Amino acid sequence: MKKIFIMNLGTTSFKFKCYLFSDEKQDVIASGEIESVGAEKSFYELQLGDEKKKSGSLHIANHAEGFSFCVKALQENGLLHNLDDLDAVGYKAVHGGNLSGTRLVDDELLKEMERITPLAPAHNPIYLTAMKDIRERFPSLTQVARFETSFHATIPDCRTTYGVPYQWREDWGIRKYGFHGSSHEYIAGKMKELCPDANRVISCHLGGSSSICAIQDGKSIATTMGATPQSGLFNNNRVGDFEIFCLPMLLEHYDGSLDQVLKVLSSESGLLGLSGVSNDLRLVMKSMDEGNAHARLAVETFVDNIVGYIGMYTAFLGGLDALVFTGGIGLHSDRIRQMVCSRLGYMGLELDAEKNVVANLDRISTERSSVKVYRIKTDEEIVVARNVYAML
Amino acid sequence: MKKIFIMNLGTTSFKFKCYLFSDEKQDVIASGEIESVGAEKSFYELQLGDEKKKSGSLHIANHAEGFSFCVKALQENGLLHNLDDLDAVGYKAVHGGNLSGTRLVDDELLKEMERITPLAPAHNPIYLTAMKDIRERFPSLTQVARFETSFHATIPDCRTTYGVPYQWREDWGIRKYGFHGSSHEYIAGKMKELCPDANRVISCHLGGSSSICAIQDGKSIATTMGATPQSGLFNNNRVGDFEIFCLPMLLEHYDGSLDQVLKVLSSESGLLGLSGVSNDLRLVMKSMDEGNAHARLAVETFVDNIVGYIGMYTAFLGGLDALVFTGGIGLHSDRIRQMVCSRLGYMGLELDAEKNVVANLDRISTERSSVKVYRIKTDEEIVVARNVYAML
Repeated sequence: MKKIFIMNLGTTSFKFKCYLFSDEKQDVIASGEIESVGAEKSFYELQLGDEKKKSGSLHIANHAEGFSFCVKALQENGLLHNLDDLDAVGYKAVHGGNLSGTRLVDDELLKEMERITPLAPAHNPIYLTAMKDIRERFPSLTQVARFETSFHATIPDCRTTYGVPYQWREDWGIRKYGFHGSSHEYIAGKMKELCPDANRVISCHLGGSSSICAIQDGKSIATTMGATPQSGLFNNNRVGDFEIFCLPMLLEHYDGSLDQVLKVLSSESGLLGLSGVSNDLRLVMKSMDEGNAHARLAVETFVDNIVGYIGMYTAFLGGLDALVFTGGIGLHSDRIRQMVCSRLGYMGLELDAEKNVVANLDRISTERSSVKVYRIKTDEEIVVARNVYAML
Repeated sequence: MKKIFIMNLGTTSFKFKCYLFSDEKQDVIASGEIESVGAEKSFYELQLGDEKKKSGSLHIANHAEGFSFCVKALQENGLLHNLDDLDAVGYKAVHGGNLSGTRLVDDELLKEMERITPLAPAHNPIYLTAMKDIRERFPSLTQVARFETSFHATIPDCRTTYGVPYQWREDWGIRKYGFHGSSHEYIAGKMKELCPDANRVISCHLGGSSSICAIQDGKSIATTMGATPQSGLFNNNRVGDFEIFCLPMLLEHYDGSLDQVLKVLSSESGLLGLSGVSNDLRLVMKSMDEGNAHARLAVETFVDNIVGYIGMYTAFLGGLDALVFTGGIGLHSDRIRQMVCSRLGYMGLELDAEKNVVANLDRISTERSSVKVYRIKTDEEIVVARNVYAML
């Protein structure tokens, strides 16, 4: 039995799940979330064993302090005796550059994460700081990173290559990596259980951040995000696929500030930028229903993007057995699922309109549909925990 | 009967065709090409009426001088009496920004072409200079521009929109335009003759510059090039789709010079950059056959790009009736056609291996193939001439 503490970090958020893990059983013994890390007042919510949920607020300066706070709560509750009782902490880390897979947090790893930070400027610094701080506070603790790029290591070279000089790829790592690996890996595993005959699966993770993955025989063979998590599908406030040759014109309008242009593209674009309404699809759709043409354009562009990539990935897979929707939008927006699937009738795919609106139903295509359609709740932390466990 | 002189200009090249045009008949009465315009010695080749081809060399300083030279040759030959005998000159112009279609060259047009030049820096200045110079030399001459973006005016808004702030699109024209319009328009027209039942056609223009277009009921509904002719498919020496967020890392390596990075992406990338061999696919394939792994990667990436877009456009079209190959590579490389089509069996497409290697055969799929496959020689000048004639 191993105790594994999994962390999923955002700029000001700290989420964790603590597992008791064996080959036979994987139990979440505690989980929780801290919001507004670094602010004067941070808010926490903890689920410790079978106890009632605990919540409250106090100042938590950074992610390492958040970790200490949670570990202390587990100790007070008897779920942990002391820190040695924890076999490892595992991070759902983002960009490992040339290092992919599941790896011990050591100097080499920190160095490569730092080198590749220009390609994940919003994500890598958070993890780097937490890893270093926690190592300093708890030097005997085993820290493991599972990179979000890992599941995509099986994508063929011709599909991870941009049309750039080979040396850019070789020397500097200018290539497509893909992200959301834990989610797509979870879907691949789940589909082996639910539909073992489906060798050609497309997983649509649609949510605050969105990506699509083509899965052949359980392995990723294509995904929409590239060198950074900004590319691919049009996201809630990120641009997705865009053209670098627009830059000279944009720089004219932004007084030559590349930082400013990239900031707009990474935080004021996507659904938010195009609709002018919100980065929350529900609000954008509400505005569309009220007649806002920009909101309609944003929703139509999002759907058209998804349909296009499903077509592309069907070609890469040489046909399609199953289409999966996951992520917040994928799981909860029956309208988006309907808008996407209604465009795929040409391949014999038929959504069951009634099943599509029933909560908690996984298979939502008709009996005669030649492509099975699923909605599945993803679980990224269990994938990180599994990989950390396998490594231990 | 109208006499129309069509110009297709490159940085140092000048190509023309002069037509005698009526509703019933469209005859090329002269055609020719000047190479190394602006160099100490320029080389010309002219076909004047039924005469034997003429060639030679002399100094031709710029495109306007090239035009004068050709007009003079036509006059000496009796094909033109004087300049008034020419009803119009037509340009296969590239980027007209908000102005699309076929338009008189006037101050408004020149102004908009200038404004949009940052999105077509390699193409627009050539046309702008020629249009202004020729207007100055021959003020009474009717000049008409047919923009390469024109055929794509029918693409729905959700597919010409990047996930950027709406204002970028509205105020500055940061949107997808598409290019190679004359070629794809020619293919659309030709397919109406050859295969009138094919409502869903994909046209693959593969050559020195490559793009793919989805054609529904004769109209463009999607194309691979975007705001500039640099995006989309991996080209001979241009990057194609690339990720703008790689820029901070690239600028580190190029001493902060955006010009330098964009220069590499627009002239040292694509087949040339990835293979390290050549921008000529024939040489890259030869090197691949000799065992060069980078050349193999370049060819595989090119093919994979094409296959992916065919899948995407099949989804946009809701199925596929016919696939057309055109452009230098599309017309002459049976291997590329074979490599692409062998990946599309999943949709019932079957190339006829024997027909595929017969020169001058247009239909090259088997009888039972559910998608008809064609190879067609494109004719961009006739499309420009047709549109100029219609306008006159």
